[in-house]
Amino acid sequence: MAETDQAPPPSDQLAALNLTDTVEKHAFSDRVLIRSIVGRPDGGAGLAGQRVRAGGWVKTGREQGKGTFAFLELNDGSSPANLQVIVDAGLAVLSKLVATGTCVMVDGILKVPPEGTRQKIELRVEKVVSLGEVDPAKYPIPKTKLTLEFLRDHLHLRARTNTIAAIARIRNALAFATHSFFQEHNFLYVHTPILTTSDCEGAGEMFQVTTLISESEKLEKELIKNPPPSEVDIEAARQVVSERGEAVKQLKAAKASKSEITASVAELNKAKENLSKLEERSKLKPGIPKKDGKIDYTQDFFARQAFLTVSGQLQVETYACAVSNVYTFGPTFRAEHSHTSRHLAEFWMVEPEIAFADLQDDMNCAEAYVKYMCNWLLDKCLDDMQFMAKSYDKGCIDRLRMVASIPFVRISYTEAVELLEEAVKGGKKFENEVKWGIDLASEHERYLTEVKFQKPVIVYNYPKGIKAFYMRLNDDLKTVAAMDVLVPKVGELIGGSQREERYEVIRERILEVGLPLEPYEWYLDLRRYGTVKHCGFGLGFERMILFATGIENIRDVIPFPRYPGRADL
Amino acid sequence: MAETDQAPPPSDQLAALNLTDTVEKHAFSDRVLIRSIVGRPDGGAGLAGQRVRAGGWVKTGREQGKGTFAFLELNDGSSPANLQVIVDAGLAVLSKLVATGTCVMVDGILKVPPEGTRQKIELRVEKVVSLGEVDPAKYPIPKTKLTLEFLRDHLHLRARTNTIAAIARIRNALAFATHSFFQEHNFLYVHTPILTTSDCEGAGEMFQVTTLISESEKLEKELIKNPPPSEVDIEAARQVVSERGEAVKQLKAAKASKSEITASVAELNKAKENLSKLEERSKLKPGIPKKDGKIDYTQDFFARQAFLTVSGQLQVETYACAVSNVYTFGPTFRAEHSHTSRHLAEFWMVEPEIAFADLQDDMNCAEAYVKYMCNWLLDKCLDDMQFMAKSYDKGCIDRLRMVASIPFVRISYTEAVELLEEAVKGGKKFENEVKWGIDLASEHERYLTEVKFQKPVIVYNYPKGIKAFYMRLNDDLKTVAAMDVLVPKVGELIGGSQREERYEVIRERILEVGLPLEPYEWYLDLRRYGTVKHCGFGLGFERMILFATGIENIRDVIPFPRYPGRADL
Repeated sequence: MAETDQAPPPSDQLAALNLTDTVEKHAFSDRVLIRSIVGRPDGGAGLAGQRVRAGGWVKTGREQGKGTFAFLELNDGSSPANLQVIVDAGLAVLSKLVATGTCVMVDGILKVPPEGTRQKIELRVEKVVSLGEVDPAKYPIPKTKLTLEFLRDHLHLRARTNTIAAIARIRNALAFATHSFFQEHNFLYVHTPILTTSDCEGAGEMFQVTTLISESEKLEKELIKNPPPSEVDIEAARQVVSERGEAVKQLKAAKASKSEITASVAELNKAKENLSKLEERSKLKPGIPKKDGKIDYTQDFFARQAFLTVSGQLQVETYACAVSNVYTFGPTFRAEHSHTSRHLAEFWMVEPEIAFADLQDDMNCAEAYVKYMCNWLLDKCLDDMQFMAKSYDKGCIDRLRMVASIPFVRISYTEAVELLEEAVKGGKKFENEVKWGIDLASEHERYLTEVKFQKPVIVYNYPKGIKAFYMRLNDDLKTVAAMDVLVPKVGELIGGSQREERYEVIRERILEVGLPLEPYEWYLDLRRYGTVKHCGFGLGFERMILFATGIENIRDVIPFPRYPGRADL
Repeated sequence: MAETDQAPPPSDQLAALNLTDTVEKHAFSDRVLIRSIVGRPDGGAGLAGQRVRAGGWVKTGREQGKGTFAFLELNDGSSPANLQVIVDAGLAVLSKLVATGTCVMVDGILKVPPEGTRQKIELRVEKVVSLGEVDPAKYPIPKTKLTLEFLRDHLHLRARTNTIAAIARIRNALAFATHSFFQEHNFLYVHTPILTTSDCEGAGEMFQVTTLISESEKLEKELIKNPPPSEVDIEAARQVVSERGEAVKQLKAAKASKSEITASVAELNKAKENLSKLEERSKLKPGIPKKDGKIDYTQDFFARQAFLTVSGQLQVETYACAVSNVYTFGPTFRAEHSHTSRHLAEFWMVEPEIAFADLQDDMNCAEAYVKYMCNWLLDKCLDDMQFMAKSYDKGCIDRLRMVASIPFVRISYTEAVELLEEAVKGGKKFENEVKWGIDLASEHERYLTEVKFQKPVIVYNYPKGIKAFYMRLNDDLKTVAAMDVLVPKVGELIGGSQREERYEVIRERILEVGLPLEPYEWYLDLRRYGTVKHCGFGLGFERMILFATGIENIRDVIPFPRYPGRADL
């Protein structure tokens, strides 16, 4: 055993989590989480006298008492609350500690601060264990008030701000709430594919995934280094073949010895092989391979054109029609050139799919899921929600409470249009005309949920002409069993439908909307064999975060936003 | 309100989940889950006499008693167990019910079957509520023994087989176990980007994402429909401009009226506008846009080259260095042309990242996580594990128990090489030579974990030459603080490291391995500003499923496998 290798502690020490009496140590670090101190109902006061190690980044710091000590507000991301830390000048060069963004790990004793201060507990440092300095003159996100827009140019550092960290915790909570909800209700999480060859609703908005460009660039470089044979080279090789052939012929005619003929034939074969290699290489052409004037996708990685998924629904239906209750939660993509505050090129979707269930069940599930998420945030993220209420949207907590407790209004599309027409008669101005058959515009949806009802509204039974082929045709033959959930602040949060389970009807619908049958044969098979009534919906995960937090721009609620012209990191 | 719209029940009925005395109704369907009957400790016997609605797909069916009734084994995916269903001839055409794959929903009474049968309960049908037929002559996956390889050609139906459904439940359980583990330990789930412009470790193995091809195809079509102007057209337009210019000049020289001159200038401007439009259009060229002989990526969707991520690690580090404990769980991609049973082009990875933590903490976290998943499966998926043990790998349950309970062996790379060299001296043959400095091959890893120790082994402190630049350089300057977790059956399950947090050292390492600094400036910023000791690892999620189930081919443990030449659906 090499002496430089330090033997690790035996792993059975692992189980012992080294709990102190009251502060829980981090399981995989020798520090405690700041939340486990200041997040207590007593603000940490009950922990006075305990020795702890804490680590985090300085939010604000200042030297005091003529440079004899420093106050640091330390945050480790475990909650919005900071730990107040006091360091004496003898322990470190104080000026190196106080810059915003500085990382410190310290050992110390928790003490109750003098009366009249805001904190219930503070940490008196005994030792500065480690220090990651910041030069405040160069730090890209110094303490001054930074706009969310400015922070988008510093994606790699923006999680160090209070806002983006709070959003990260809320996003995390909503993600785990999503899994918890569906797991509690016996849904299986299914990973639908990101790469798809089902170019489902027209490839216009899809990103293409390919290795043809990099392969052709590789070939181009190779051909520059090692040029393909010229016609002259090939002619010369052909000449050699014909000479060798002639030689064989002559030896045979002259009845030469077997060994002589064999040797000559071997020479001929070698020449032929060389020729065919040269001919093969001469066919190599720089550029993307083409066949009959079109790109030859048989040479692409998947031997056909491939795209990034726009939805996992069709694929997850194959699981719903086998194991009943399933959901996806993953990234989806749109190559739309939209520069709005509501669209991303890469965003996350939650898509449950339920067998033996109809549109009523679908609405029930959607409503229960949204309420569950609202309750989850009120339960587990109230401190972050309070921060959002204080900083961005004072109504956001009330909105969560309202949605969690009030039954959603349910109206048919026809009723919705009637209500909008009444509003127009009453003097309400919309940019988009209201009449039966239109796709409701965002302004219409916002009017219904924010003005007319002031609560969540589910609109169902939409005209078939504005909805996808897979939605179940209603008996009126004019509408389909679709539903959208509209909520204040964002409008449409969920879109779903009962799926058309009748083979003849869906086949007809595919043709009616002008799609080819062939790519949907697998989807039709689900209706051909053991078909089942089923339904599902999709929730735009970032929309849910916008709804919860009141943040205005979707680019601020996903860690690494992708939109036209931007995909940093 | 239109008469065709059926008013839905008020949503406050939602809360009442309609529990019967003992069988829990499905929350969003009017049936019960079959597991809630046959999954009880008493096999369902205690439910005798209850009326229930059940739905599922027929696994096997047969007509009995000269066609007077039929037995159906019904499965709804909620567990591997079937519900035995008995349908009398008067209720349906029995021959339409018995084909494998048929979907039925039935109402009936639960009864204790005659003694001597395997079932503890059966459902006596009173009404066949719905029926999705199967023509057994055409059904692509009839009841005969089907190989996993055959099923890969029928991705859309294979979840209806016992094996793929069991794998789906195990995969689901491992996914939720993953979230539960990290949430319990205060890690935040962070969605790292799928689309990335950080072409980190050489683009060779990365899929490119682009809209250039579809845009150029769109343009090509447009140019065929509406050809660009010829030189003659442009010359003619130029001629018009010069004539109009001349006209203006003459009018001015002739001191014509203001209105005459204004009109003439307007004509001139119109002609100029037309010319510039034509000139603009004449520049449109079919094909992918180029500049200086290279593809002009400024015209691509993100205004630069973009790829599918191979790992979220570097990006998630930006969150670890802000909120301390984070993890990713998402799809990652490799455009490798490998046709092995261990590689996919699209696969899921779990990547935690811990601040204020070193290699020891990393190993502790990895070991605790793997143990947690094993215990989870033993706890919650024992029926599915028993199916896998019976059908594929009789040792799989014992393997889970062993890994869950035994401390992992921890040896340095140097020790590992010494052990392998000893084995070679003892007569063990390896295909790959063993000596200090090599990257351990799969055969070496399998030997250590399966033969030498017969339990999980963590190998740490690898030679820096075979590891990535971001791994922390040890004091010996020869090794880095990397670690791999090896387990029986699959070999490497986890790879991780402490990250290099020292600015000067990592900068040097980037240059040493021949990478440019510029694309890593953001990554270097994490070390420039408030740097922190941190570590992390990646677990190949499909590897974990292979390990758990004993399934041999990775294409069978992901719902929609993607590999060279194949990306069905």
